[in-house]
Amino acid sequence: MIKKKILIAQGGGPTMVINKSLVGIIQQAKKKFRVLGSLNGVRGIIDNKIINLNELSAQKLNEIENSPGAALGSTRDKPDQKYCDEICKFLKKKKIEKFFYIGGNDSSDSLRLISEKAKKDNYQLQCIHVPKTIDNDLVLNDHTPGFGSAAKYVSSLFAGINLDVNSLPGIYIGVIMGRHAGFLTASSALLRKRKSDGPHLIYFPESTFDKSKFFNDVMKVYKKYGKCIVAVSEGIKNNKNQLLATLESSLNEKDAHGNVQLSGSSSLGDFLSNEIKKTLKIKRVRADTLGYSQRSFLGCYSEVDQKEAKLIGKKALQFSLKTSESFSVSIKERSRFSPKYKITFSLNNLKDIGGKTKYMSPKFINREGNNVTKQFINYALPLIGKNFPKFTTNL
Amino acid sequence: MIKKKILIAQGGGPTMVINKSLVGIIQQAKKKFRVLGSLNGVRGIIDNKIINLNELSAQKLNEIENSPGAALGSTRDKPDQKYCDEICKFLKKKKIEKFFYIGGNDSSDSLRLISEKAKKDNYQLQCIHVPKTIDNDLVLNDHTPGFGSAAKYVSSLFAGINLDVNSLPGIYIGVIMGRHAGFLTASSALLRKRKSDGPHLIYFPESTFDKSKFFNDVMKVYKKYGKCIVAVSEGIKNNKNQLLATLESSLNEKDAHGNVQLSGSSSLGDFLSNEIKKTLKIKRVRADTLGYSQRSFLGCYSEVDQKEAKLIGKKALQFSLKTSESFSVSIKERSRFSPKYKITFSLNNLKDIGGKTKYMSPKFINREGNNVTKQFINYALPLIGKNFPKFTTNL
Repeated sequence: MIKKKILIAQGGGPTMVINKSLVGIIQQAKKKFRVLGSLNGVRGIIDNKIINLNELSAQKLNEIENSPGAALGSTRDKPDQKYCDEICKFLKKKKIEKFFYIGGNDSSDSLRLISEKAKKDNYQLQCIHVPKTIDNDLVLNDHTPGFGSAAKYVSSLFAGINLDVNSLPGIYIGVIMGRHAGFLTASSALLRKRKSDGPHLIYFPESTFDKSKFFNDVMKVYKKYGKCIVAVSEGIKNNKNQLLATLESSLNEKDAHGNVQLSGSSSLGDFLSNEIKKTLKIKRVRADTLGYSQRSFLGCYSEVDQKEAKLIGKKALQFSLKTSESFSVSIKERSRFSPKYKITFSLNNLKDIGGKTKYMSPKFINREGNNVTKQFINYALPLIGKNFPKFTTNL
Repeated sequence: MIKKKILIAQGGGPTMVINKSLVGIIQQAKKKFRVLGSLNGVRGIIDNKIINLNELSAQKLNEIENSPGAALGSTRDKPDQKYCDEICKFLKKKKIEKFFYIGGNDSSDSLRLISEKAKKDNYQLQCIHVPKTIDNDLVLNDHTPGFGSAAKYVSSLFAGINLDVNSLPGIYIGVIMGRHAGFLTASSALLRKRKSDGPHLIYFPESTFDKSKFFNDVMKVYKKYGKCIVAVSEGIKNNKNQLLATLESSLNEKDAHGNVQLSGSSSLGDFLSNEIKKTLKIKRVRADTLGYSQRSFLGCYSEVDQKEAKLIGKKALQFSLKTSESFSVSIKERSRFSPKYKITFSLNNLKDIGGKTKYMSPKFINREGNNVTKQFINYALPLIGKNFPKFTTNL
């Protein structure tokens, strides 16, 4: 019997657990299907770079699922109509029945375009979106695989910085990924233990960033504690909705989705740090821009995130057997934050996910717009897992 | 019986395991001695901020030794003659018999000045230097506590970046701490598995950095692999021995030791990245400056480093009972790199350590001055421990 064919691709920025979802799909599918992989996202379809995934050994699959980055490679390409026509033509020719695309909201939007084209062509293609993003900004998702591990990285980094600044007091500014949504920036607060622990101030893309308010905030904390640790999103905007990062740098580039490149350049952190030195006359001011390790650091996994990322891959395959429609699988919104953390899955229309952005709920941000609330901690703390050293922030 | 008094302080930049040495001394000393701690290094002696450490519970000590940062606080103060006079006066008044200072080569130099002053004053003070530095740049030390964990952080970060750049190919530049010695920068190579794995190029403070050679190197790798990952020390210098970081930035400040502040500012990475974009016309170029997490990230410990940092604290106390002389305790140089990794300790004169810098041995750097040798890998690999996920860098 000739097995039916499924194709898997990975799109957008990689995460620490995106390969968990890949391996989840492969393990669930390999008995029933011929499992193919497209190299570098949808780009591999256009370039005819398709590989067989059925032959991967159990040991190899185990190594793959423990590796950060996208094992199949990724892409920032945004398919237009012509690109979609080519993808459909190819998938039809290769008799692909199900196309799994593991990615964020840009990738799910690409998938929507492909599935619409297939429908027009009367080609029975099922497109399945498997979410991943460290930004945690997919609508209709309680949270997304990839976020928990990135949040663990950011919270562990700030817990260390808090102790570093306790040792040598001063001002510290850390600039965090997430151009539209502040979830990852907010995670910097997850391992605080005492009121005096940093980050003392947190600035989100969702609140307006006012420079003179910022200086006041920093000075207030500095006077109180003799130190101040600040977490700033790369996506903070002024009251004209202009990105601070682009205002202060002329060197930013845009990707194919029209997004300005904020990471991989450190101008925002250095700018804020120099402004504080100048304006507040404080000498010891340091700024770090956290960089790509937020999504790729080897060995800083949330065990909860790992488990869920694999499970969502398996579930995606299982759900795809029960319907012929295209869909996006998601971790269902928790209706309230009970102490018992438990997830369930739901299926959404691609058009309800693609290209849409989920922002931080106002109840997660304090009234002043410069910190998180207890509700955010309750929401996010279960996602980073429990494997932390038992540390202390005071003698 | 009134117990004799010892004083402990921590100086310089903290590490992930500097508190292991602190707890090692306390646990070894607390039965025999009244154990005091000076807050914020030698500064606490001047400011009379001395606390009792005998009363810390076993649980608290356990939390302290698992915390990055200096639990007693640190300082960048460099004691001059007057400062030393005050320190001696105070220690004499408080009847301190042994003064343990956990720190790098600046701290050991402070200790030398204090011990010389005490000798002049006929005051029987034993000064004991317990080494720590992520830079690994102390002479007469095979390696220093703090380095292994920082090297684990840097190598894990680059192993993740390698997979990230495999996913989305381009140029990546990571700027690493270590103003004079390239050990930490070299560690970026420790988790490479295949010839095509990054970092493909590594630049040290010990070799002259030539910009046009650098562009050629990058282009050669980029043509071969379609990507290029570069590890650069913050301390790279041109053929006139000028720091690239200061040449490209007018905003650098100096600390009390006359050291230029290289970390906490990202100008070097951004400068190199922009130069590559301009000169080589490559579009996807990213630069990260690794920042303070290299010495303070919570949870990224080398278990080997942890064990040695604690042991060197205990040994320091034990050795101090066998002599009345001041000394610096060190992990003895390995004469050859046998497969069996094993350390022994030795005692050195303070004057042979203080203010001196150990550089990368030429045999650790390749002939072109842009990569490490197998000998470096053999030297450093045992220091980062073995607790890594089993990952793969190819399908």
